[in-house]
Amino acid sequence: MRSLFVGRFQPLHKGHIYTVKQIIDRGEDLVIAIGSAQYSHTPDNPFTGGERLMFWKRAIIDEGLPLERIDIVPVPDIGIHPLWVSHLRSLVPHFDMAYSHNPLVRRLLKDAGFEVAETGLLERGTYSGRHIRDLMRWGGEWEPLVPDGVVEIIKGLQLDERVREIGEVTIVR
Amino acid sequence: MRSLFVGRFQPLHKGHIYTVKQIIDRGEDLVIAIGSAQYSHTPDNPFTGGERLMFWKRAIIDEGLPLERIDIVPVPDIGIHPLWVSHLRSLVPHFDMAYSHNPLVRRLLKDAGFEVAETGLLERGTYSGRHIRDLMRWGGEWEPLVPDGVVEIIKGLQLDERVREIGEVTIVR
Amino acid sequence: MRSLFVGRFQPLHKGHIYTVKQIIDRGEDLVIAIGSAQYSHTPDNPFTGGERLMFWKRAIIDEGLPLERIDIVPVPDIGIHPLWVSHLRSLVPHFDMAYSHNPLVRRLLKDAGFEVAETGLLERGTYSGRHIRDLMRWGGEWEPLVPDGVVEIIKGLQLDERVREIGEVTIVR
Amino acid sequence: MRSLFVGRFQPLHKGHIYTVKQIIDRGEDLVIAIGSAQYSHTPDNPFTGGERLMFWKRAIIDEGLPLERIDIVPVPDIGIHPLWVSHLRSLVPHFDMAYSHNPLVRRLLKDAGFEVAETGLLERGTYSGRHIRDLMRWGGEWEPLVPDGVVEIIKGLQLDERVREIGEVTIVR
Amino acid sequence: MRSLFVGRFQPLHKGHIYTVKQIIDRGEDLVIAIGSAQYSHTPDNPFTGGERLMFWKRAIIDEGLPLERIDIVPVPDIGIHPLWVSHLRSLVPHFDMAYSHNPLVRRLLKDAGFEVAETGLLERGTYSGRHIRDLMRWGGEWEPLVPDGVVEIIKGLQLDERVREIGEVTIVR
Amino acid sequence: MRSLFVGRFQPLHKGHIYTVKQIIDRGEDLVIAIGSAQYSHTPDNPFTGGERLMFWKRAIIDEGLPLERIDIVPVPDIGIHPLWVSHLRSLVPHFDMAYSHNPLVRRLLKDAGFEVAETGLLERGTYSGRHIRDLMRWGGEWEPLVPDGVVEIIKGLQLDERVREIGEVTIVR
Repeated sequence: MRSLFVGRFQPLHKGHIYTVKQIIDRGEDLVIAIGSAQYSHTPDNPFTGGERLMFWKRAIIDEGLPLERIDIVPVPDIGIHPLWVSHLRSLVPHFDMAYSHNPLVRRLLKDAGFEVAETGLLERGTYSGRHIRDLMRWGGEWEPLVPDGVVEIIKGLQLDERVREIGEVTIVR
Repeated sequence: MRSLFVGRFQPLHKGHIYTVKQIIDRGEDLVIAIGSAQYSHTPDNPFTGGERLMFWKRAIIDEGLPLERIDIVPVPDIGIHPLWVSHLRSLVPHFDMAYSHNPLVRRLLKDAGFEVAETGLLERGTYSGRHIRDLMRWGGEWEPLVPDGVVEIIKGLQLDERVREIGEVTIVR
Repeated sequence: MRSLFVGRFQPLHKGHIYTVKQIIDRGEDLVIAIGSAQYSHTPDNPFTGGERLMFWKRAIIDEGLPLERIDIVPVPDIGIHPLWVSHLRSLVPHFDMAYSHNPLVRRLLKDAGFEVAETGLLERGTYSGRHIRDLMRWGGEWEPLVPDGVVEIIKGLQLDERVREIGEVTIVR
Repeated sequence: MRSLFVGRFQPLHKGHIYTVKQIIDRGEDLVIAIGSAQYSHTPDNPFTGGERLMFWKRAIIDEGLPLERIDIVPVPDIGIHPLWVSHLRSLVPHFDMAYSHNPLVRRLLKDAGFEVAETGLLERGTYSGRHIRDLMRWGGEWEPLVPDGVVEIIKGLQLDERVREIGEVTIVR
Repeated sequence: MRSLFVGRFQPLHKGHIYTVKQIIDRGEDLVIAIGSAQYSHTPDNPFTGGERLMFWKRAIIDEGLPLERIDIVPVPDIGIHPLWVSHLRSLVPHFDMAYSHNPLVRRLLKDAGFEVAETGLLERGTYSGRHIRDLMRWGGEWEPLVPDGVVEIIKGLQLDERVREIGEVTIVR
Repeated sequence: MRSLFVGRFQPLHKGHIYTVKQIIDRGEDLVIAIGSAQYSHTPDNPFTGGERLMFWKRAIIDEGLPLERIDIVPVPDIGIHPLWVSHLRSLVPHFDMAYSHNPLVRRLLKDAGFEVAETGLLERGTYSGRHIRDLMRWGGEWEPLVPDGVVEIIKGLQLDERVREIGEVTIVR
């Protein structure tokens, strides 16, 4: 039994870890799909797919979660909803069911015949990528919301500075 | 003499039928181009190109319009305006003139050398795809604005439920 | 019950008509998907999607086949096999089963859960798009292999001349 | 020593000329990259890449700037920031450093190892493409902000009329 | 120190394992990039990106290689060589050097400033994806060339049957 | 009066110069469109669009041709023939007629309503990009076929070495 968990992880935060632990505790193997993987350097998608993969790898090791039961896969966005499930399935290992709190993802996966389940959530307003990016941008305390190892990567590569710099620009033209 | 009529038909409503009848009554053959055909499952484009083609086919038969004089063609969007007329022309049968109430479509077709005409319109605020999607979303009475056969398809496939579910989500990420 | 029939129809020939008649005679409605619809002006794909749609429309009317039971849909190629069935399904009306003699199409549709059936064939070496394009290119008698109405369209628009001109060139660069 | 200057030039205005003169006066050769080159006929990108190239060519000649030291290159947008510098570099001649006032462009070029410098600016609110497009749209006096030769091209081809017509429409669908 | 190893792995064979062991033995962490990840169901690319990821995951576990030091990342092809290194870098974790026996990959990585090294090779004619696909297609003994766990996955999912079926077809049209 | 001349210029050779001189001598302004501009590092397209632009700039200056009458524009390939003329027109300045010896280019431009003329040619087998790339690859004397300034750029940037290295590889995978 292998489950899917989809997100953008801009950045990975403790709410994501909380979800993954629940799935692993149910005894299911797990595919973590990093969505919109090709994008970076935008206000909503500041980190690259590869950086987000490093976030997850580090967090899984730090948390002592079983690497042999977890796959982490960057999935570029294709921008066309009716193709998205096929696209996803071609890039990740076979999965039997999925977890998501996003109603569109739930709908698309259900229409493709997948069971979609939910997990408990940490407080959603606080543990949200958007909120954390805003804190980075405006000098707030984002560090407590993010796993320690991820904080270390972000600061080591000065990725929080990138978030600040591109905060108000929308597109290269 | 064959004319072109372009729209997204999200969904097809009685205003579209009213336009098509005027064109057919003028004795012209007709190509109905279903724009943005690859998109679906978004708040502005909930229905697939194939579903919209089914809407038209059913409405044309129910209205007793002459199928042998009408072509219905899904046309995926290419997102680059200066290529749009060439793209359209390569996917549909030859046409001599076009009908549109959209100023950009009119401009692009005129720049490519086509005559662009207008038809009378039903009340535009009421007979509008946006208005009908909003009614579906918030529980209003959308059914009187849409041909009976199309209402039947939408309810039979529970497509109005899809509109409600994805109403507030903008993109899969 | 609605069936799917996929081809490129470069050009439409009597073998295709023979197949479609068998499907219609079984009492099934039919979707004719015109593949690689965005291509034209190449040795293998000389005719546009719109021209091929005109071929089918004319042939269906000339043969007295029931237009109200048949949809003709240009489907642009997306070049990525694992997405092809989803792409196809989003652009055409709902179908229940499919006909094809192409092993890859059969495989992809079966993998997506569709029943795939066959029909009897006219002599395959003769009734083949490639053979007919070669005849056009080298001055052979292609006309007997193609429905009369389609011959008329091809000659009226001088499309056979296009086939000859671009016969040996592979790409614009 | 060759420098890069990137912009969209919708349209070219006297602020751009002011910047280019400073670079040329420093003795550097110059590549002018016309960004988002494939877009036109939108409220933000009304002019084609080719029209914008004509604007620059004319202005350079009128100003007596040295054509042999300046390259003007339309660069289509690819929409994925981490690929943008590589894409740009493959389409333009080799350059050693860059000028830009856009923080994202500065960041992307710096991340790729380029020195990024600034020039003095004319008053930024006035000499801005957005401001000039608004003036065109609402009947204001845009002509004094744009080089005379460019005014002549715009009026000769009635491009200001295009800006007005498509002023409030966002996309062809 | 983290190294990159790029391949298509159609399928993964013992030659690949031999290379990876050498890199791991040198004490370097490793990113395995699965190239052309979006393709499948073609004679040259029969297996999906996700299937190839499963091959690697299984082989690494079976060989007792250290999962915490290895990342496996599907990388879709973008078809434009001068953008490939940037594209690759945006989808995988940071790497310091690369291994490849392909002269073009070596050239592109070197041009982007990376050190590119080599490893010893098993006999190249035998341990080659092309050779193994041919054996699958024509009923030869491919199993000894592929790790046992990968053989098990391929047979369990009947992927060798897919290779046979699509063996001679080149493209869906 | 402005004319168009399209080619890939892989690399620019004396045959191209011969053509351009004829057009300039007729008193026409000229747009040189560098086709397939996004490609490089392949056996058929070894040089980037930017490098080819540098070839032309240098040759025009060395030959004393009038820069103020000539535009050089890299045009990325879009791979869909029926859109190609619109794509080209959107990226280059307005032109009135075109020169080409390629039958497909001639056909596409004529179908779009352009007059297409020819020029005298140097011996075609010798003055051909393919021939010159083969000479580079196998150690032949390619230098006499290429303008001196272009030879200098190619050798200065060791681009001939690139041609040799990637000579037999077709695609990055």
